[in-house]
Amino acid sequence: MNNFEYANPVKIVFGKGQIQRLPELIPAGAKILMTYGGGSIKKNGVYDQVVKALENFDVVEFGGIEPNPQYSTLMKAVEIVKNQSIDFLLSVGGGSTLDGTKFIAAASKYQGEDPWDILAKGAPITDALPLADVITLPATGSEMNCLAVVSKKETTEKLAFGSPYVFPKFSIIDPTVTFSLPPRQVANGIVDTFIHVVEQYVTQPQHATLQDRQAEAIMLALVEEAPKLKENPNDYDVRANLFWMATQALNGWLNVGVLQCWATHNIGHELTAQLGVDHGQSLALVLPGVWKSQRKEKGDKIRQLGRRVFGINEPDPEKAVDLTIEATKNFFRSVGIDASREAYGVTDQVIKNIADLIDSRGVKFGDRANIDGAKIIEILNLCD
Amino acid sequence: MNNFEYANPVKIVFGKGQIQRLPELIPAGAKILMTYGGGSIKKNGVYDQVVKALENFDVVEFGGIEPNPQYSTLMKAVEIVKNQSIDFLLSVGGGSTLDGTKFIAAASKYQGEDPWDILAKGAPITDALPLADVITLPATGSEMNCLAVVSKKETTEKLAFGSPYVFPKFSIIDPTVTFSLPPRQVANGIVDTFIHVVEQYVTQPQHATLQDRQAEAIMLALVEEAPKLKENPNDYDVRANLFWMATQALNGWLNVGVLQCWATHNIGHELTAQLGVDHGQSLALVLPGVWKSQRKEKGDKIRQLGRRVFGINEPDPEKAVDLTIEATKNFFRSVGIDASREAYGVTDQVIKNIADLIDSRGVKFGDRANIDGAKIIEILNLCD
Repeated sequence: MNNFEYANPVKIVFGKGQIQRLPELIPAGAKILMTYGGGSIKKNGVYDQVVKALENFDVVEFGGIEPNPQYSTLMKAVEIVKNQSIDFLLSVGGGSTLDGTKFIAAASKYQGEDPWDILAKGAPITDALPLADVITLPATGSEMNCLAVVSKKETTEKLAFGSPYVFPKFSIIDPTVTFSLPPRQVANGIVDTFIHVVEQYVTQPQHATLQDRQAEAIMLALVEEAPKLKENPNDYDVRANLFWMATQALNGWLNVGVLQCWATHNIGHELTAQLGVDHGQSLALVLPGVWKSQRKEKGDKIRQLGRRVFGINEPDPEKAVDLTIEATKNFFRSVGIDASREAYGVTDQVIKNIADLIDSRGVKFGDRANIDGAKIIEILNLCD
Repeated sequence: MNNFEYANPVKIVFGKGQIQRLPELIPAGAKILMTYGGGSIKKNGVYDQVVKALENFDVVEFGGIEPNPQYSTLMKAVEIVKNQSIDFLLSVGGGSTLDGTKFIAAASKYQGEDPWDILAKGAPITDALPLADVITLPATGSEMNCLAVVSKKETTEKLAFGSPYVFPKFSIIDPTVTFSLPPRQVANGIVDTFIHVVEQYVTQPQHATLQDRQAEAIMLALVEEAPKLKENPNDYDVRANLFWMATQALNGWLNVGVLQCWATHNIGHELTAQLGVDHGQSLALVLPGVWKSQRKEKGDKIRQLGRRVFGINEPDPEKAVDLTIEATKNFFRSVGIDASREAYGVTDQVIKNIADLIDSRGVKFGDRANIDGAKIIEILNLCD
């Protein structure tokens, strides 16, 4: 096991009716910028609940943060923060709104010339506005980590940053708000959760027995609970379980002391940047290609996943890998995501563009840092 | 799933050589009280490492904190804190030293008349000295929680308290320091870890799929790793895995949103208070009795544990419970703990004393609060 540090101070406030506790959770007298997305919170009652809870606070609203939050949009919020002396950010929405709000928090206190450098050059963050959230979509786990992904349409870039300064002070998770989510978003979130676990698990055997079992715990629970949604989408416990899984899949807990391979996310982000493919769907498309291409390097962990999560007891090692890939795709299909290169418009030209872009950045993906442009072409050609 | 809050700010600094990072982790200029136990840290080199790392700090030493730390000892440390203007506590040792140090931290800032009230009456804690630790024994999980247990020999009491103010600021876990531990302490720690998980898991089915799987993850990893110690006690990864399991078994993660049953600990504490039985051994003795006595209430979860952790696929429900109890006792035996009423001196008179004591306090144990003095007699008579 490698040496590691782990610290995650986020206070999780989980359950029915927790939104009304906002006044006790936010510092008294705070001047709040309330950020949100395209307005779904106005349809499902969350907006009204939050506004009512904040009636004794000074609140400025900033709506319109897009899925895959755009740098230009977020910089408008940074202007408001500065002009109106905002001292607390409250994100009300899904992972995109929260990721965007984390960037607003960091950019508002950024001392350098161009806040885009936080994403493009990993410019150091030395301070940020305090932020918190009411999270409405189980998917990204952003509610319990210090990571964010921001996009720039003009340059088809989608880049990540992380800093302990952007941990939410608290995250309110009320599973009842997910009852009204569109099935496509729910399905995307389930796939995102599964693949967050995979990217911290399907690497190389490292004698990290507990981390392995904990990753499998989330996948086993996901495979058990997700199918129940069809029968009874308003089952509170099913929704609560699924939300808690999403939160834990990316709170830093699974990857302590072990290698990680974020190749599926790295390549998926490029598909979203180029073609606007939903994040979850881009992942569902790419993962089987990564596994097929890396079947030698990742075979041991793929087989362990197949055996322990899907109960595959195939003695032939190559067949066991194939069966695990098929079981994983079937799981994605069972929740409603049947990923397809053709449907998403992933042409040979798009693939070449992505490969060239990655090579031009000089980065290589994966826990062995062996996935370059040529490998990306191989991977995407191995996808359905 | 029940509503819950979770917040755990402890910074874990895990791995080889981490003790030398103390100077960057402790606030500059702190006046430190370094607490430790009976002196084993002077034999295994930990004391020298810590003293060297702290050479530029003003350090007062306080050794001699006992296993099952005694109130009278700890109050001597509180005097030193007050007389010498100590502003940071560093615990160097196992869970007893750390629990004791948590009590010193709270008692040093306690405004009421008698700090024993923190334990006996749950008197509220509104402040505490900052504390941190170098933890040397995988067992109690004290390094990542805000709980502590303190004893009073004079009145044969062993009582617990908890407060967010006594979360360690950081915990250094260097698994190499466990190479020199006596086998008995290692075995006690493994049993303690297992039973911490059990007390948060063997209650009633509650449709908390993820919490169940996460509890099973620790038990599965424990059952896989613990036997490896015999073959190779100096295998770093085995030691690292076991330590990380102990930390996670009681960091609050497993019990969010679910019931808990601490009956085995509650009764075990009384055996330790009355007879001085090692904590781990008291638990190994009591657990089978609790399960036998509560086989109706806890049967579903006992069977689930048997099936998923020990691979018991017995269709008869009563036999499945019996087989799970036997497998659990065999696991304890395999790590070197063969608990016995006779060997520990648990006579009929001792049992009666404990039952009377619990009834006199007016408390009932268990997730159904149905374990009173009479049930305790039944439970202890069902133990080996």
